Amino acid sequence: MAKQKPVILVTNDDGITAPGIKVLVEVMQTLGKVVVVAPDSPQSGMGHAITIAEPLRLEKIDQFEGVESYQCSGTPVDCVKLAVDAVLHRKPDLCVSGINHGSNASINVIYSGTMSAAMEASIEGINAIGFSIGDYQFDADFREARKFVKLIAGQVLKKGLPRGSLLNVNIPAHNGKPIKGVKVCRQAIAKWEEEFDEREDPRGKKYFWLTGKFVNYDKGEDTDEWALEHNYVSIVPVQYDLTAHHGIRYINKNWDL
Amino acid sequence: MAKQKPVILVTNDDGITAPGIKVLVEVMQTLGKVVVVAPDSPQSGMGHAITIAEPLRLEKIDQFEGVESYQCSGTPVDCVKLAVDAVLHRKPDLCVSGINHGSNASINVIYSGTMSAAMEASIEGINAIGFSIGDYQFDADFREARKFVKLIAGQVLKKGLPRGSLLNVNIPAHNGKPIKGVKVCRQAIAKWEEEFDEREDPRGKKYFWLTGKFVNYDKGEDTDEWALEHNYVSIVPVQYDLTAHHGIRYINKNWDL
Repeated sequence: MAKQKPVILVTNDDGITAPGIKVLVEVMQTLGKVVVVAPDSPQSGMGHAITIAEPLRLEKIDQFEGVESYQCSGTPVDCVKLAVDAVLHRKPDLCVSGINHGSNASINVIYSGTMSAAMEASIEGINAIGFSIGDYQFDADFREARKFVKLIAGQVLKKGLPRGSLLNVNIPAHNGKPIKGVKVCRQAIAKWEEEFDEREDPRGKKYFWLTGKFVNYDKGEDTDEWALEHNYVSIVPVQYDLTAHHGIRYINKNWDL
Repeated sequence: MAKQKPVILVTNDDGITAPGIKVLVEVMQTLGKVVVVAPDSPQSGMGHAITIAEPLRLEKIDQFEGVESYQCSGTPVDCVKLAVDAVLHRKPDLCVSGINHGSNASINVIYSGTMSAAMEASIEGINAIGFSIGDYQFDADFREARKFVKLIAGQVLKKGLPRGSLLNVNIPAHNGKPIKGVKVCRQAIAKWEEEFDEREDPRGKKYFWLTGKFVNYDKGEDTDEWALEHNYVSIVPVQYDLTAHHGIRYINKNWDL
């Protein structure tokens, strides 16, 4: 019986001490045998970065009771690569990443270390899910989130995923009202409008802090942003084949090459 | 007349001193008014990373004769954001990134800082192209590359790009034979098979170097890998909407949510 338990790799981008990963570990323990390989420090905004100019450290630590856990000096993507090759020596049955503190809906999927870890697993042929909650606070209320994380991970283990895809799951911040359910969505067309905060250091040299506001241009009711605004959990199936197929036809038809 | 020249933003991920960006600057000077904002150090493998936990530095330098140039302490994506917001104070007419030393065909699009810079520009609504050459050497032969860079950038300036897409252009390494032409392709389904090189430091602690080999599983003759193998320049139109639309139908049909 124990042998048949699925092996579940858990990682994140907020670092192994973040509350979100603890919730994910606890829920996954109800579904399978959990192994954790996560960054030893926060890696938000790392996108699909990999570490090629420096060596990586991997250290076994006692972070979660009864769960084999490692912290890694690299990025979320490095964690997945190392987990498969140097820890598990096999593909896990599922890789889950998160629960990220802050939404990764819409264009955030591109910048997110949480989603990139899941995407790396998917590239390796592993069923993968990135989970995020729309609450940046470390004392975020994960009570409702637990229920949906278990439901969705359970469905992936039982039913699988469409070929070449992974899931970007976003859970609305707890707002006192019960979450209405789950919507399977497309990525909303939205972006960050940057404004850099320009300052001077004590030596009179300029520096900039990246800041900005998120603007949703997409009025569709089939998007992840719509679902979250209306208190649904959003699931966007995501792919790593970035080909814009309509673009192939367009260029062949319109260009002189 | 001078006013009508298109403004072209040039960036890369190998750093502002790399030979590839020099070639790109020279070719773009024949097409428009060039402004360079590029990393002050190599940023290969940075993917779509952004710098949020540290401030950014931006320094005007005299790197290319007669060309306004800045080096930036951040990632390639940071360079594009800063260029638009703090240097140009407008959207350029074109953003080109590269010429990257090493192929960014197939799955490399995901890990590439070169392509992420171009993608960031595209997200901002700017026509964008990432250029790479299949030669890691800093003394790579760019003679043929120049011709195709000019052809393709010229077409984008004249004909535009399909909505929501940018171009991933790869040029075969110079092999003594003339390049046969240009193919508009899809991204080949290929991946890196990782192997970590495990070593011990002088204090007896383990560390790992990421290494591996690239494996192409895709036998299609419409892929970028096929084109490059057959000595064509490959153009893949790329999109930042990662939604796997077939996955929405699959999940709605097969899952119990």
